[in-house]
Amino acid sequence: MTQIDVKQKVLAANQEAAAELRTGFAASHMLVVNLISSPGSGKTTFLERTVADLKGRLKLGGLEGDIATERDAERLRRLGIPARQILTGGACHLDARQVRQALVEEKGTLSNLDVLFIENVGNLICPTSYDLGEDFKVVLLSVTEGDDKPFKYPAIFSKAAVAVLTKVDLLPHVDFDLAVVREQIATLNPGGKILETSARTGSGMDGWYALLEAELAKKRRG
Amino acid sequence: MTQIDVKQKVLAANQEAAAELRTGFAASHMLVVNLISSPGSGKTTFLERTVADLKGRLKLGGLEGDIATERDAERLRRLGIPARQILTGGACHLDARQVRQALVEEKGTLSNLDVLFIENVGNLICPTSYDLGEDFKVVLLSVTEGDDKPFKYPAIFSKAAVAVLTKVDLLPHVDFDLAVVREQIATLNPGGKILETSARTGSGMDGWYALLEAELAKKRRG
Repeated sequence: MTQIDVKQKVLAANQEAAAELRTGFAASHMLVVNLISSPGSGKTTFLERTVADLKGRLKLGGLEGDIATERDAERLRRLGIPARQILTGGACHLDARQVRQALVEEKGTLSNLDVLFIENVGNLICPTSYDLGEDFKVVLLSVTEGDDKPFKYPAIFSKAAVAVLTKVDLLPHVDFDLAVVREQIATLNPGGKILETSARTGSGMDGWYALLEAELAKKRRG
Repeated sequence: MTQIDVKQKVLAANQEAAAELRTGFAASHMLVVNLISSPGSGKTTFLERTVADLKGRLKLGGLEGDIATERDAERLRRLGIPARQILTGGACHLDARQVRQALVEEKGTLSNLDVLFIENVGNLICPTSYDLGEDFKVVLLSVTEGDDKPFKYPAIFSKAAVAVLTKVDLLPHVDFDLAVVREQIATLNPGGKILETSARTGSGMDGWYALLEAELAKKRRG
C-alpha cells in the first residue's frame, strides 16, 4: 500500500467511528463543538471564560487533546466541570476512536451534557481532516498571529462553521487588519460566522453564547 | 503494511535525502538553519529583520514552506535576497526531497550562500521528525502563545539547538512568565540556547546574529 492508500484507509476508519459518535450525540441531544487552532491561540482560555459564564445555565464538559501534559483538562476541572485529557501519543490531531474510547472510559460523565467542547491538539492543519462526530468546527485565530493566516491555512477556514478571532484586546499593540481577515474568511467560507472576542475582557463573548444556545435549541428540535 | 510501517518507510527515505543534502551543504560551506514554530509566531518577520540587518555582510537566501500562498517568499525577495516558496500540497511539514527538488530547480541561486534559512510550515509537531539536512533547528515561540508550550510540545523543544522567544515587546500586555519557559526549555534541552527577541524593536537580535556568525565560522573551519 502507498502512503496515500494508508491515509485513505485511516480516514475511512475514522469516518466510521465519527458516524457512530454522531448518532450517539444526536440521541442524547448533546451539542458537540470541535475547537481547532494553532498552539497558543487561546482555546483553553476561551473555554475557561465560556465555562465560568455559562456553567450556571448549561451542563458543560470538555475533552482536551494534547501531545503531552494534563494541564488543559485540569484547567477546566478547576472550574467545576467534567473534563478529560486525551494524550495523542505524538499524533498531531484527535481522531474519532480516541474520542469514543475516552467517552466510554468516562462512564457517562461526558455523555449527558448540554454542550461537550472538544479542544483539539494545537495545530491548524492535521485536525481539519478528522471528523469527530461534532455538530460543527470552530477555528480560532488570535490577532497576534497575523492577518495572512486564513489564506495560508485555507482548509480549516473553509470547513469551520464559526471563526473566532481571539485576544482582540491586543489589537492596539499588533499589526492586524480585521477587514483583511474578514474578507479572507468570507472568500473561503461565504456562509461562515465570524466572532471578535477577548476572553480577558469578555468583549464579544455574548455573541458566542447566543450562538451556542441557538445551536443547542436547533439540535433539541431535532 | 501498517500505518506505522509506512511512516517508518517515509522517514527512512527522508533521512536518505537529508544525508545527501547535508553532504552538499558541507561541500559548499553553507550554513543551513531549519526554523520551526506555530503559525503566527513571527518566523517570517524574524527573518525579514535578519535579512535587513545582515544582507550587507552575508549572502543569504530562503526556502519558505507553506500549505498555500507565495506570500512568505515574496516578503523575502522584496528585501533583495533569493527565496523560493515550496507549497507542500497539504502536508504539515517540509521534507528533504522537496528541499532537494527546490534547490535543483533554482539552478544554484540557493546553493552558494553563506546562510540558507528554511522556514518550515507553521506547525509545532510534524516538522520535528523530518531532517532537512540542516546544521541545526531553531524553534520559535512568541510570548503571546503562553508559557506552557515547551512542555506541551516537548519533541521540538528537545531537538532544537536554539529556542527563540519572539515578540518580547508585547510582554507588558500578556501573561507570560519568562522564567517558567526558560526552565521548561532547560529541562527538555539542557545544552540548548535561548534568545529573547523582538523583530519589531530589534531587541535581542544581536545575539542571534552573533550565533549565526559563530556557527558559520565553525562550519567553514570544517
